[in-house]
Amino acid sequence: MPAETGRLLIINGPNLNLLGTREPEVYGTATLADVEEICRTAASAHGLAVEVVQSNHEGELVDAVQSVRGSAERPGADGIVINPAAYTHTSVALRDALGAVARPAVEVHISNVHAREEFRRHSYISPVVDAVIAGAGLTGYRLAVDLLAERLQD
Amino acid sequence: MPAETGRLLIINGPNLNLLGTREPEVYGTATLADVEEICRTAASAHGLAVEVVQSNHEGELVDAVQSVRGSAERPGADGIVINPAAYTHTSVALRDALGAVARPAVEVHISNVHAREEFRRHSYISPVVDAVIAGAGLTGYRLAVDLLAERLQD
Amino acid sequence: MPAETGRLLIINGPNLNLLGTREPEVYGTATLADVEEICRTAASAHGLAVEVVQSNHEGELVDAVQSVRGSAERPGADGIVINPAAYTHTSVALRDALGAVARPAVEVHISNVHAREEFRRHSYISPVVDAVIAGAGLTGYRLAVDLLAERLQD
Amino acid sequence: MPAETGRLLIINGPNLNLLGTREPEVYGTATLADVEEICRTAASAHGLAVEVVQSNHEGELVDAVQSVRGSAERPGADGIVINPAAYTHTSVALRDALGAVARPAVEVHISNVHAREEFRRHSYISPVVDAVIAGAGLTGYRLAVDLLAERLQD
Amino acid sequence: MPAETGRLLIINGPNLNLLGTREPEVYGTATLADVEEICRTAASAHGLAVEVVQSNHEGELVDAVQSVRGSAERPGADGIVINPAAYTHTSVALRDALGAVARPAVEVHISNVHAREEFRRHSYISPVVDAVIAGAGLTGYRLAVDLLAERLQD
Amino acid sequence: MPAETGRLLIINGPNLNLLGTREPEVYGTATLADVEEICRTAASAHGLAVEVVQSNHEGELVDAVQSVRGSAERPGADGIVINPAAYTHTSVALRDALGAVARPAVEVHISNVHAREEFRRHSYISPVVDAVIAGAGLTGYRLAVDLLAERLQD
Amino acid sequence: MPAETGRLLIINGPNLNLLGTREPEVYGTATLADVEEICRTAASAHGLAVEVVQSNHEGELVDAVQSVRGSAERPGADGIVINPAAYTHTSVALRDALGAVARPAVEVHISNVHAREEFRRHSYISPVVDAVIAGAGLTGYRLAVDLLAERLQD
Amino acid sequence: MPAETGRLLIINGPNLNLLGTREPEVYGTATLADVEEICRTAASAHGLAVEVVQSNHEGELVDAVQSVRGSAERPGADGIVINPAAYTHTSVALRDALGAVARPAVEVHISNVHAREEFRRHSYISPVVDAVIAGAGLTGYRLAVDLLAERLQD
Amino acid sequence: MPAETGRLLIINGPNLNLLGTREPEVYGTATLADVEEICRTAASAHGLAVEVVQSNHEGELVDAVQSVRGSAERPGADGIVINPAAYTHTSVALRDALGAVARPAVEVHISNVHAREEFRRHSYISPVVDAVIAGAGLTGYRLAVDLLAERLQD
Amino acid sequence: MPAETGRLLIINGPNLNLLGTREPEVYGTATLADVEEICRTAASAHGLAVEVVQSNHEGELVDAVQSVRGSAERPGADGIVINPAAYTHTSVALRDALGAVARPAVEVHISNVHAREEFRRHSYISPVVDAVIAGAGLTGYRLAVDLLAERLQD
Amino acid sequence: MPAETGRLLIINGPNLNLLGTREPEVYGTATLADVEEICRTAASAHGLAVEVVQSNHEGELVDAVQSVRGSAERPGADGIVINPAAYTHTSVALRDALGAVARPAVEVHISNVHAREEFRRHSYISPVVDAVIAGAGLTGYRLAVDLLAERLQD
Amino acid sequence: MPAETGRLLIINGPNLNLLGTREPEVYGTATLADVEEICRTAASAHGLAVEVVQSNHEGELVDAVQSVRGSAERPGADGIVINPAAYTHTSVALRDALGAVARPAVEVHISNVHAREEFRRHSYISPVVDAVIAGAGLTGYRLAVDLLAERLQD
Repeated sequence: MPAETGRLLIINGPNLNLLGTREPEVYGTATLADVEEICRTAASAHGLAVEVVQSNHEGELVDAVQSVRGSAERPGADGIVINPAAYTHTSVALRDALGAVARPAVEVHISNVHAREEFRRHSYISPVVDAVIAGAGLTGYRLAVDLLAERLQD
Repeated sequence: MPAETGRLLIINGPNLNLLGTREPEVYGTATLADVEEICRTAASAHGLAVEVVQSNHEGELVDAVQSVRGSAERPGADGIVINPAAYTHTSVALRDALGAVARPAVEVHISNVHAREEFRRHSYISPVVDAVIAGAGLTGYRLAVDLLAERLQD
Repeated sequence: MPAETGRLLIINGPNLNLLGTREPEVYGTATLADVEEICRTAASAHGLAVEVVQSNHEGELVDAVQSVRGSAERPGADGIVINPAAYTHTSVALRDALGAVARPAVEVHISNVHAREEFRRHSYISPVVDAVIAGAGLTGYRLAVDLLAERLQD
Repeated sequence: MPAETGRLLIINGPNLNLLGTREPEVYGTATLADVEEICRTAASAHGLAVEVVQSNHEGELVDAVQSVRGSAERPGADGIVINPAAYTHTSVALRDALGAVARPAVEVHISNVHAREEFRRHSYISPVVDAVIAGAGLTGYRLAVDLLAERLQD
Repeated sequence: MPAETGRLLIINGPNLNLLGTREPEVYGTATLADVEEICRTAASAHGLAVEVVQSNHEGELVDAVQSVRGSAERPGADGIVINPAAYTHTSVALRDALGAVARPAVEVHISNVHAREEFRRHSYISPVVDAVIAGAGLTGYRLAVDLLAERLQD
Repeated sequence: MPAETGRLLIINGPNLNLLGTREPEVYGTATLADVEEICRTAASAHGLAVEVVQSNHEGELVDAVQSVRGSAERPGADGIVINPAAYTHTSVALRDALGAVARPAVEVHISNVHAREEFRRHSYISPVVDAVIAGAGLTGYRLAVDLLAERLQD
Repeated sequence: MPAETGRLLIINGPNLNLLGTREPEVYGTATLADVEEICRTAASAHGLAVEVVQSNHEGELVDAVQSVRGSAERPGADGIVINPAAYTHTSVALRDALGAVARPAVEVHISNVHAREEFRRHSYISPVVDAVIAGAGLTGYRLAVDLLAERLQD
Repeated sequence: MPAETGRLLIINGPNLNLLGTREPEVYGTATLADVEEICRTAASAHGLAVEVVQSNHEGELVDAVQSVRGSAERPGADGIVINPAAYTHTSVALRDALGAVARPAVEVHISNVHAREEFRRHSYISPVVDAVIAGAGLTGYRLAVDLLAERLQD
Repeated sequence: MPAETGRLLIINGPNLNLLGTREPEVYGTATLADVEEICRTAASAHGLAVEVVQSNHEGELVDAVQSVRGSAERPGADGIVINPAAYTHTSVALRDALGAVARPAVEVHISNVHAREEFRRHSYISPVVDAVIAGAGLTGYRLAVDLLAERLQD
Repeated sequence: MPAETGRLLIINGPNLNLLGTREPEVYGTATLADVEEICRTAASAHGLAVEVVQSNHEGELVDAVQSVRGSAERPGADGIVINPAAYTHTSVALRDALGAVARPAVEVHISNVHAREEFRRHSYISPVVDAVIAGAGLTGYRLAVDLLAERLQD
Repeated sequence: MPAETGRLLIINGPNLNLLGTREPEVYGTATLADVEEICRTAASAHGLAVEVVQSNHEGELVDAVQSVRGSAERPGADGIVINPAAYTHTSVALRDALGAVARPAVEVHISNVHAREEFRRHSYISPVVDAVIAGAGLTGYRLAVDLLAERLQD
Repeated sequence: MPAETGRLLIINGPNLNLLGTREPEVYGTATLADVEEICRTAASAHGLAVEVVQSNHEGELVDAVQSVRGSAERPGADGIVINPAAYTHTSVALRDALGAVARPAVEVHISNVHAREEFRRHSYISPVVDAVIAGAGLTGYRLAVDLLAERLQD
């Protein structure tokens, strides 16, 4: 395992703290802790550190995206995995934040949003990220980490 | 009056803290304290306790909905009365939270939203609650408590 | 029980005569007679009389709404509870009739129309009534009577 | 005054029986009897008889339109003045009836429907009549009779 | 010819009483009596009785659909052939009635509605019937009877 | 014939100078001079003078509408008959001019615009005039003059 | 059985080769061979021959439609039964081919397309065929053959 | 310089804390501190004090708007300059807050939102403020302060 | 006051010649002469000359915009303040002219167009100017001059 | 070169007088004089005379189209080449003029309007001309003249 | 006649093989062989060779477009004339192929597609070709060849 | 490396045969052979065989999807990776084929389709596959193979 030479920020949006308890027929029984474990393991294999954030607050998610720029108190991040959940469909603020920080980013959705209500097919986020992965379950997070690792190595 | 055998969570959305001062020709002169009193009285008659929450923050309202699941520190709730106010029309996050917690819920609007701007006629919330009451003024809260009490007794 | 000092007209639209037999998973097993009983009981508690009308004919429902103005042969009414059923979505005539008679009116839907086909989310009626109650089952009629009673006492 | 050599059918749609009492700021204080008088006077000046029908029932209005074909029991009519009121916006049946009977017809609206709610700007009826007169108040009926008289003389 | 062992209700909507006289270039010269004869002959070949109803009134058509449930005074019916004519495009009430009575039903249009005005391409009725036959002329009724006979034999 | 006690301005929009030569199957063979004669005769019977304007230029039509306010050099007008022709569907400037001058106004269309291309069914002008007359041929001008005369007498 | 005096071309679109195995709850268990048998039997009763074509390729279906014109090597056809399946909703090429060959044609859908996804309610094909039969199962093919036979005999 | 006789609240929405670093080709290189300086200087010239707020949280922005009403702990404000940034397009809550507090308000956008993505052309905020200034860069804030100063002096 | 070192063209669209008389509740009582005075004073303070144009004719406004290029007979201009009034919503020609002349330009609306009819919220002009100021009353012109002066100094 | 035996009118819309100076990356550097030369040369080869008109005024363009009918003072024309520029998308008046004069007409656009803003893809003019040529640069005028010459020879 | 120094590929889409037999009132009586002859003659005059392809298969048309790149077995082409016929309105694959091969291309339609069904006014192809010629009949092919010849000479 | 215990079918749609040559700024310089290599390597690591198909023909792609069912001559497949390219947006036939074969399937797009033309944001395919990966470049194929391998092992 290589030394950690980069950092990824894993951002989870509203209600994902309920993962494993909410509508298991849609989202499965794994929890947010499992998401974190999946990301940490995958990132570690590429020599990357991860930080995981979850919030039900749009503003806190915007803050989180901005935090990749780093500050005196804490390190920034080199790439973003984001599951914006409900804010996918309603948040121009998150879109603008992602556009502003100029980091490679992958949008992940656990379920196949295209097979659900019509309004879930529109994403304000997709046009400003590098890639979108939907319907791959929790594995989607691993694929996103793999993809970012590859991009950071280029 | 029976012993309190259940709990209702009364959630009020943005700008309802101004109730009684904001556009009285639309909302009347009663205040949020009056809403609380109406709910408490109605709930008490059915042997139910109430907790009242108001926030201008979408994320805090999502947190509040999730709180009906209870935790080590505080009890949950058996039913929800929610006036999502402006978030009615824009919040998929609140919708998902209500869908996730699986509690009987009634959406209340003080004014008749159908007689106002066109965009107020669309609610992200209505499809995931049990019932919707609009235009009944503050009495709408009482009717909602009555209805939930009846549902909880079934 | 106080003497009857006011009258409410309870109007039920098309196919509600089948209540209790039609799609019980949506509408339950109670019948239109039960609706009448619920309304009569609730109204009586407020000292109000009720008259109940059901028709599958849009024109007869318009006639019924107009009848609240009273005539030489029969008394009018002081308030209206109306479940326009299918005509909710298609009848400008009913809307105009309600607008013309200038009586307090409450629109009731037994099921939560917002959780069904998209076209059931648009109501020609809602903008011209005082309040709308949807999804409360037959209890919705009782809540509507309570609300009108309160309004008539003001 | 010439002998009556032709007949006009004047058809009035839902809620026009309330004319003079309903929203006088929109429709004025004249009544349906006044409409009849205006039409009779104008028609008589052209040697035409009139028959006046009003109904809140879409089906009766369709029957009325069809009646211009005449039958063993009663004479038909040579032209139609129709104020379809609310059915203007919702009735394909009336449109088809007018298309089927092949008589000169004029659509009349007392108020200027274009200055009211958006949905009142669409008419199913207009494309199948000869002329449309809106916003001329009760005078619109007289203008319609004048116009039909002229057409019948050609 | 077998004994009659089932009954079909043939429902015809507004203006179909004018069949044979109205727009013969669209509908041909056969009359409603011919429709009845076609249905009776076809049904008889399958040992089925028919009852034929025509009305220009939406409410009466709803009543007719409901009548398939039978009553003390008259027998019900086992299947429905319905040409809703203009109400195809505007009647949620008919749709709800057909949904409520749970009988096999076939929607028939004499002309090819898809080759006419755009608004005739939308049917509120089609999603709740078993089959739709359009453009087959009066033969469409015979095909519908054949189809229902087959379904009733299964 | 009474002395002329009022003035009407008759405004005709683009291509109406071709009247009688353009698409006679739609507009007939009468010319703009005939329109002027019809208006003059009708107005004269009510003791009103008329001035007739035609232009293919939107700006000149706006100027014409404004001219009803009168000036040092020429008299204004008390009412407007306007056939905006093609500008009906595209000119907010004409709408604003009519809204600004505050004179009774009637919009006239020779043909039944509702029976032609879809885009001809929308009028920017209709919501700001008193009445609209369409499909009455050149007679529409006479009816408009009659109506304005009546209004001016009130 | 009369001598074969005419020929019908039965055209089946994409995925109908899977009939009987694909989504049997929607399409049943009968196979394309059964469709062919049904058509052959029905046609034979009318003295008609049939040729059956199936392809997943839009271009081959266009070729097939054109083939009704016949050529030196093979006979043409007198009528067309076409189930365009998925190409119903997307193929202007098939529409143009049907419009070009000028043969009586009936569009058949096994399932009731109006009760499925919204996009299945629009057909590019319907406006250019004589008749449309949807939801009648495999019987729809027989009805189509019957109808064409009748048309060819006129 | 006059004594400060009024207070303005300058509210900046999400991602404006990144000003000067985010997309400088759109927003320039000046920072939020520069905005504050511009506003303070302009206000001071009119004898007005300013308070500047920035948040990425919709709820905090709503709180800020409400704060113009003042409280025991802190003074209110007499006018509002608001750059709602991304919430311009998605926040009914901000709109309602501005509508509720009844203070003169000017909406400012640094870039010309009309020359960017289509969704940026719709503002929930514009209909409830007094004026909108877009595309004037940071100078827009100064113009807004000037305008409010003028309004407060009236 | 510095010597005049630049020129601004102030262009006013249709009906603005009526300013001060038209709908004063919307536009106030100041006149176009006041607009000119405001602009001249503001420009003079920046050492700029102004030329003011008003026309009800779309073509003349296009000519005016083009005139900023100057000619043998008259000087051009360095910046444009334009209130396109009604042509804001309908003129692609004005948009193209502004795009063609490549001068700094500010679009001004006296009233808050976003708080009026829905169609006034769309501007063909906004995407091709530098800035838009709406709802600031006549002060909007002064702000526009100030902004252009600043831009010309850069 | 044959004697001139016909005349073409070449009509150019708003801002085409700037050709060669406006957005040369879109329109090239040739001028309107070059357009005239191209047309004259091409027409001359077919024995046709040309007259060239350019205006920024919609009304003058309407006048020009009408002028093909000729008058006492000047000859008419036998065909029209029109580049309506911005009025392509907004002028019903030009459309009506072209429809009225009944001359062969070709619509020309120098640039490929389909590869620019979405609103430039809609033309009011195209449905009433014979042919449309877009994106061929100035050569488009020559092709249009060639095509008209061919049509006039038939 | 110069030596052939370039090659054009003429691609014709579905149903154009029927040219001369299909809807002659729309397309005339000339055949695809005439199209080929027209193109060959025009190209030859410019020293260009032509290859003509027609297919009813979208995929074969994509293959044809790609073939302009040439291969070991056959030469490529320097320009494309394409009449995509029905695939104009439905084929993103053709659009992508044209975008990929980077050759000058002209889209031709024999009839004026803008004067037919609404759906024929949208082209997926137009934004990726250089020019579009519609309604010029078979002459359109000649004009397209002329235009490409000119482009290839630049 | 384990023995191959399953098979994946990799399907590539129209124009992907040009990969590496077409718009390299969008798709990069790798070729379809690289895609095949990537898939083969990734699959091999999971003990899976791959078969790769590319076609520009919608029908061949439908055939390919159906081929996963296997036949006497060739083996089927256990999972599908499909990049439908342009047919993503237009092919209901591919959607139906994928729905019919009931195999795990992943939709891959090399570029981020959400950041391109609006019409590329709609996919007929997404609702019937398990997962969608867009914008990950050729790596997307590897991720898709990984995901299917995981699903097949469950």
